[in-house]
Formats: sequence, C-alpha cells, structure tokens
Amino acid sequence: MSRQGVFITLEGGEGAGKSTQIARLAARLRAAGHEVLTTREPGGTPGAEAIRALMLDPARHFAPLADTLLVFAARADHVAAIIRPALEHGAVVLCDRFTDSTMAYQGHGLGVDRAAIATLGAMIGATPDLTLILDLPDAIARARLAHRGGAADRYEQFDTGFAIRVADGFRAIAAAEPDRCVLVDAAGGIEDVTETLAGLIRARLGLAIA
Amino acid sequence: MSRQGVFITLEGGEGAGKSTQIARLAARLRAAGHEVLTTREPGGTPGAEAIRALMLDPARHFAPLADTLLVFAARADHVAAIIRPALEHGAVVLCDRFTDSTMAYQGHGLGVDRAAIATLGAMIGATPDLTLILDLPDAIARARLAHRGGAADRYEQFDTGFAIRVADGFRAIAAAEPDRCVLVDAAGGIEDVTETLAGLIRARLGLAIA
Repeated sequence: MSRQGVFITLEGGEGAGKSTQIARLAARLRAAGHEVLTTREPGGTPGAEAIRALMLDPARHFAPLADTLLVFAARADHVAAIIRPALEHGAVVLCDRFTDSTMAYQGHGLGVDRAAIATLGAMIGATPDLTLILDLPDAIARARLAHRGGAADRYEQFDTGFAIRVADGFRAIAAAEPDRCVLVDAAGGIEDVTETLAGLIRARLGLAIA
Repeated sequence: MSRQGVFITLEGGEGAGKSTQIARLAARLRAAGHEVLTTREPGGTPGAEAIRALMLDPARHFAPLADTLLVFAARADHVAAIIRPALEHGAVVLCDRFTDSTMAYQGHGLGVDRAAIATLGAMIGATPDLTLILDLPDAIARARLAHRGGAADRYEQFDTGFAIRVADGFRAIAAAEPDRCVLVDAAGGIEDVTETLAGLIRARLGLAIA
C-alpha cells in the first residue's frame, strides 16, 4: 500500500468509550487541519455492513472459524473500498475496531486458532500506524453497558468469563506489540481520556492535534 | 478429522450437470447400501445459505478478496456443522463445489492470490478423497445455460473470458493433483456421464455402487 495518510485504530471491550473518543479525536484532528475519515468494524461499506448484520443477529449461529472469516471478509471489503483509498489520499483514518478485535474476541475469547487469525491479518495487509487500546476494569465495563440499555447483541450475550478473556487478550496484544499499541486506562472522565489519546497521537506519530 | 466416511466433491463450470449427476450418484450409492449425504457450496447450513444469498445478489458488490473470504466463511460453517459430522458418522458425502471452485472462480477467474486461497483451504482442513471435475467446451456450457433460462446471478453476468479462465483453472487443478482429481468429459449424454463417474468412484475409492 502506498500511503501518505495515517492509520489509527481504537480497540477495547464493549463500553470502553471507543466511539465517543473517536468522534472527539476526529474533531480535534480536523481543527488542526487534517482530513479525517472515521469508520468502524465490522462494517464501513454496504457489503461489510450487511455482513455485520448477519453476524450480530442473535438468531444466527456460525462456527467460530466461520465467524472469524466473516469478520475478515468485511475487513477486506472495508480496506479495499474505504481505508486504502483514504490513506492513499493522505487522510488520517480513525477506525473503531480492526484486526486486534478479532484476535481478542475470536482468538482469546472464543478459542479460534490465533496463528490463523494472524495469517488472515497479514492477508488483509493494512497494519495500523498506531493502535490505542481502551482498557477498563470488567466491573466498570458491565456497569456502563447496563446503563446503555437496549437488547443485547450476540457478543454481549456471552458469559462474564468471555469478557475477561477478551480484556486479557487486548492486554496481551499491547504487551506483544509495544511499538504499535498503547494500553490506555479508560476508567477516567471522558475529557481526561481524550487528552491522553491526543497526547499519544502527537507523541507517537508527530501529528498536530488541537 | 477422524473419518470413517468418504468425501467426494463434484466440480466444474455452470451448466456442466453437477447437480443432476450428484442426484444420480447418490441414488446409486444408496442402492448399494451406503448412507449418503448430498450438499452444496456455497451453502449447506442456514448461516452458509445466508452468506450465499448475500454473495449472489446482483445488487451487491464485494472486493475480490472479500468474496473469497465469504466463500470460506460459509465453507467453515458447512464443514463444522454438516460435512465433518457426516464423515465421522461414516457417510459418503457428495458435495456440489468445494475449495477447487474458489481456486477456479476467484483465483483463476478474478485474479485473487492463489497462494492465499490455498492457505485458506488448508485452514478449513477437509480435503476431498476424490474430486470429479466435469469439463465442458465453453460453447456447450453457454448453450445449456441459455436453455436453463431465469435471471443471471452475479457470477453468470461475468464475461466470456471469465468462463474460459474458470474452465482452464479447473483443468490446471486436475493436472496439478492427479491423485485426488479426475477431469471428466461432460459433453456426452447424462447416463454416459453417470456411468463414467460411478466407474471412477468404484475404481478410485473401492466403493460399491449400483
């Protein structure tokens, strides 16, 4: 991929505040003059959104490896149609979840072969320049989700052990790839977390941010 | 996979007569006392059929690698829920299309990286015991499809060059894996082709067939 742009992913469990923080970081990057694209996974293209709907339908069941391949199918479409063109155009791309979520949820959470997930990640071929992993103690994540309300989707129906395995998975990824990944404490106030994330974008990537 | 069963796949382009031949072979294998499961790809489970519907919708567009990963997602579900249990139970499984179709359509036809397709095939881990590839001159395949009528699905809308690349791809697969694959001339009458296929199942696998 010939890139002028910068690819930043936000990762973490449910309720960690990724979508809120992406909106806030996008505003601050735009205020500093960057062209910014915000997007999310699974999804980001009509085809990928259709795959996302299929996967999150509580009435559906897929074998764990099938689940994993569906995520990567959506990701391949998203990268080809949205992320790669935006990076080639010079944008800062802020993406809510990427391959690390697959490693955490399907690999650490559901026991899908992690080497297979790594192979699929390499096949997609879009490695983030910086990955900000929002880390939250499990009790706080549950309280935030309960407050959010609404029907649980298929992932939210899994047991507490699943959420803990996912959170531990994210911590393991951050420990294994310190050049790319930073674990950020997301238990603080929204503005404090944004300030921390903005500081990391400035320090790690040399980007101006308001 | 611990197998007592036998896994046979039928491959070939559109209009080669795979579904007709699978029904006829299943009847003759059952008449010889075998438990037989017939199935097809992409599909074979509710989840895989939903993926199939998504892929064949002429209004949809997926990047070629996304297409490929969707096929393998459906395949992973199909193998886990249907094919592997049937083989472990001792059945003869007759499957209409499998990984060779992905190699021919997405690899040879659409130019998706063939090494990636081979990697994905190995990840799925269910290699057929025998693959019967129905080979048809392009002009005859087109005439049969025109006769069949109905709306063209997304694959049938591709150009003639695509159909030729797919047919050549199947021939290349047969040449590269002669222990597993047999190229069968499908231009003859239905009964003659069934007789040839039944003879190959008897000779290659030692299975009784009526």
